[in-house]
Amino acid sequence: MVKVTVWNENRHEQKNPIVRELYPNGIHGTIAEFLQVEGFEVRTATLDEPEHGLTDEVLKNTDALIWWGHLAHDEVKEAIVEKVKQRVLEGMGLIVLHSGHFSKIFKALMGTSCDLLWREAGEKERLWVISPGHPITEGIPEYIELEHEEMYGEHFDIPQPDELIFTSWFEGGEVFRSGCTYNRGLGKVFYFRPGHETYPTYHNKQIQRVIINALKWAEPAKRERPVYGHRKPLEEMKGEKSE
Amino acid sequence: MVKVTVWNENRHEQKNPIVRELYPNGIHGTIAEFLQVEGFEVRTATLDEPEHGLTDEVLKNTDALIWWGHLAHDEVKEAIVEKVKQRVLEGMGLIVLHSGHFSKIFKALMGTSCDLLWREAGEKERLWVISPGHPITEGIPEYIELEHEEMYGEHFDIPQPDELIFTSWFEGGEVFRSGCTYNRGLGKVFYFRPGHETYPTYHNKQIQRVIINALKWAEPAKRERPVYGHRKPLEEMKGEKSE
Amino acid sequence: MVKVTVWNENRHEQKNPIVRELYPNGIHGTIAEFLQVEGFEVRTATLDEPEHGLTDEVLKNTDALIWWGHLAHDEVKEAIVEKVKQRVLEGMGLIVLHSGHFSKIFKALMGTSCDLLWREAGEKERLWVISPGHPITEGIPEYIELEHEEMYGEHFDIPQPDELIFTSWFEGGEVFRSGCTYNRGLGKVFYFRPGHETYPTYHNKQIQRVIINALKWAEPAKRERPVYGHRKPLEEMKGEKSE
Amino acid sequence: MVKVTVWNENRHEQKNPIVRELYPNGIHGTIAEFLQVEGFEVRTATLDEPEHGLTDEVLKNTDALIWWGHLAHDEVKEAIVEKVKQRVLEGMGLIVLHSGHFSKIFKALMGTSCDLLWREAGEKERLWVISPGHPITEGIPEYIELEHEEMYGEHFDIPQPDELIFTSWFEGGEVFRSGCTYNRGLGKVFYFRPGHETYPTYHNKQIQRVIINALKWAEPAKRERPVYGHRKPLEEMKGEKSE
Repeated sequence: MVKVTVWNENRHEQKNPIVRELYPNGIHGTIAEFLQVEGFEVRTATLDEPEHGLTDEVLKNTDALIWWGHLAHDEVKEAIVEKVKQRVLEGMGLIVLHSGHFSKIFKALMGTSCDLLWREAGEKERLWVISPGHPITEGIPEYIELEHEEMYGEHFDIPQPDELIFTSWFEGGEVFRSGCTYNRGLGKVFYFRPGHETYPTYHNKQIQRVIINALKWAEPAKRERPVYGHRKPLEEMKGEKSE
Repeated sequence: MVKVTVWNENRHEQKNPIVRELYPNGIHGTIAEFLQVEGFEVRTATLDEPEHGLTDEVLKNTDALIWWGHLAHDEVKEAIVEKVKQRVLEGMGLIVLHSGHFSKIFKALMGTSCDLLWREAGEKERLWVISPGHPITEGIPEYIELEHEEMYGEHFDIPQPDELIFTSWFEGGEVFRSGCTYNRGLGKVFYFRPGHETYPTYHNKQIQRVIINALKWAEPAKRERPVYGHRKPLEEMKGEKSE
Repeated sequence: MVKVTVWNENRHEQKNPIVRELYPNGIHGTIAEFLQVEGFEVRTATLDEPEHGLTDEVLKNTDALIWWGHLAHDEVKEAIVEKVKQRVLEGMGLIVLHSGHFSKIFKALMGTSCDLLWREAGEKERLWVISPGHPITEGIPEYIELEHEEMYGEHFDIPQPDELIFTSWFEGGEVFRSGCTYNRGLGKVFYFRPGHETYPTYHNKQIQRVIINALKWAEPAKRERPVYGHRKPLEEMKGEKSE
Repeated sequence: MVKVTVWNENRHEQKNPIVRELYPNGIHGTIAEFLQVEGFEVRTATLDEPEHGLTDEVLKNTDALIWWGHLAHDEVKEAIVEKVKQRVLEGMGLIVLHSGHFSKIFKALMGTSCDLLWREAGEKERLWVISPGHPITEGIPEYIELEHEEMYGEHFDIPQPDELIFTSWFEGGEVFRSGCTYNRGLGKVFYFRPGHETYPTYHNKQIQRVIINALKWAEPAKRERPVYGHRKPLEEMKGEKSE
């Protein structure tokens, strides 16, 4: 079974009673709970722990990492970002949630600004399934409806996704590519839009299902990174061939 | 300059006074007019002409073909569809409009059912630009708004587009990949959603601009189709190499 | 476990003693054998059976279909091709092998000519892994080497693959996109180049492994096709919302 | 006409008489010369100039930037890399040549290691055209043959290209995706493999033609970057609508 680490900035929870009430154990705690029920081996890590909770030991033992951040992207140390990136290239899955679009790790893997439009107005969101044959959408009807969410709108400055899984409709008139997959090295990356901290989004069973599906899909390939670098001179190769 | 043929089924115009009033010279006539103003060399062709107006001579002299059909997809002869397909593979551009998603030629090039959701309720549509760097979106602001259009909704059963150019928001709660490019052989294909016959969509300057941009983008590559088939035996090749 | 049907034209085996010696039970027989060892539920079907062995009952009970054809593509009935295509859109996996690039079913799903260069000269082929993170390459080293194969060369007239899995190097100087995935409707399609009838390619353990991996990857999504067609009028929808 | 800046590290030219003989005015000088003949407005810039020759003024007046680097990737200042990246996101084209695969700017835009196999053995390379309909291949026959080049081999650790334009065959048994396009923000990026400093590759007319074609293709879109950030509250929008 996939070994999951749920990383959360865990700052809104300290400051905002609405968030604390929705997520008494933190957003990471709520996510960890429904993943444990599903049978995943789960640990959590947060910004204010040493090394942000992402030690070499933790990363080595993580098959897929979930990332939620917002207020304090800048406080995440470059060295940790670089280690997470290396682990993705080695095969670790990465599920980036909501405001994580602006995290250092997501921007480093995308190569673009990852900027977008946003509005906090508690609007209705509908996430339409664009790739019904994809395992991330298993068990999801034609759309997921969230009564109240923050709006994220296009243009979303990302590379064209390898696969576009969901597209959101918002009450106020915007659309958004809200579920996107990418391959980077041996690793699989999934960006999933919903999850503003002042709404109960991660208690929604369909949202939980998408995250569960994504973790299974992101399971690392059973292989080492390819060997890169210098190859034997052609003469030696020719010599071998002639023997 | 790109030589354009505008193909229209031209049946709604005969039956429906609303359509006739909006498009007195037919949808093809209206499209041909704004293309001529732009400087394209334009001809039109319609279903009820001999060979649907798409003779070998016409196809040979067409750089990019626009396709509007709806009621009578089934009446289009297979032999003509096959000729159009061959011309696309040779490099002719193809712009498929609105209900043309269900045309024989589009389905033959896609390999899928091209099915979708629809509703005629005169809803507001907003086409958001997803690829602002693409030449098809030149001169278009962040979105095009159409006050009244037919709704087309996901899931749209197409192969993942090579490039997703527009995504539509509809008042009633749906989204749709409303501008999609594909390469097929040497030819470029662009599907563009708007244009229900009972709305004045093709009089909209921004919609016209997208069609003009697409025709320029779809200009045929200046080359013959690759040579396929049998290659010389390796021994002969080796002989040549050693000389 | 994935229920597999191995379809083979089974004509070379009747005519050519070399092929018969390499594949005494037919190419389909050899493929079925190594799949059974792997635990798949396998049946075979051939061109000269009634309905080419692909009755509604067989297709309904097939999760993934393997296709090998060459001499007699034209003898495959359109009605059967259409049924296979519908099943792919419903989610059945399709693994197209070698000269199946020119089969009616592959061309119908691609929308292009699927033409290529070829030469029968028993050349060395190396299939390099382009997507090492993809499940189809599990257990495969950086390349598969086949001492003698037919050459297939670029340009290969296909739509750009959703994922490019392998690229072949040939002794005579050509390259070829030899492992390509596509999504069509709910179904997954994998084209895999090797397998000329006069070489023992399907006895190669690595080639077998790729086919086994592809069948697991192509397992149908656990869902019905989306519901397409007319949606309720906006007024009714608004009515419902206000209740 | 596209305004081009040719950037070259210009170190091999100082150290290696073979390189100096092949490129007496530097690799940048040779490239600039054939671009001027073609009518481009060209300037050059090199590592050892102040700000590596890439001042704000220069970048502002560059429509497309060519990048050749190898020995001294590490000496390129982060601040300059960041400025070049911003210009790409704003629409400036970027043509990365040969060993530039390991440049900071290319890695920053890709998000991967960009690692590969290599061997200096003066092998024959054939660059096969994979996308014959693409403007970058205009005027190029089915392949370009270079008698002697450094080998680069797969696996090449890049994101799947938006379009794969060329694939190379090497005498020693390797293949390589040697022409790859990417969209990043409003900018177009083209990676083009050939050009080892000890071979006369940039004197080859077909290689020159590809670079010329790429520069035309990479011409910036005629638009500003999208406006990102906060959108008006829904209430205000609703208010406006009701007026």
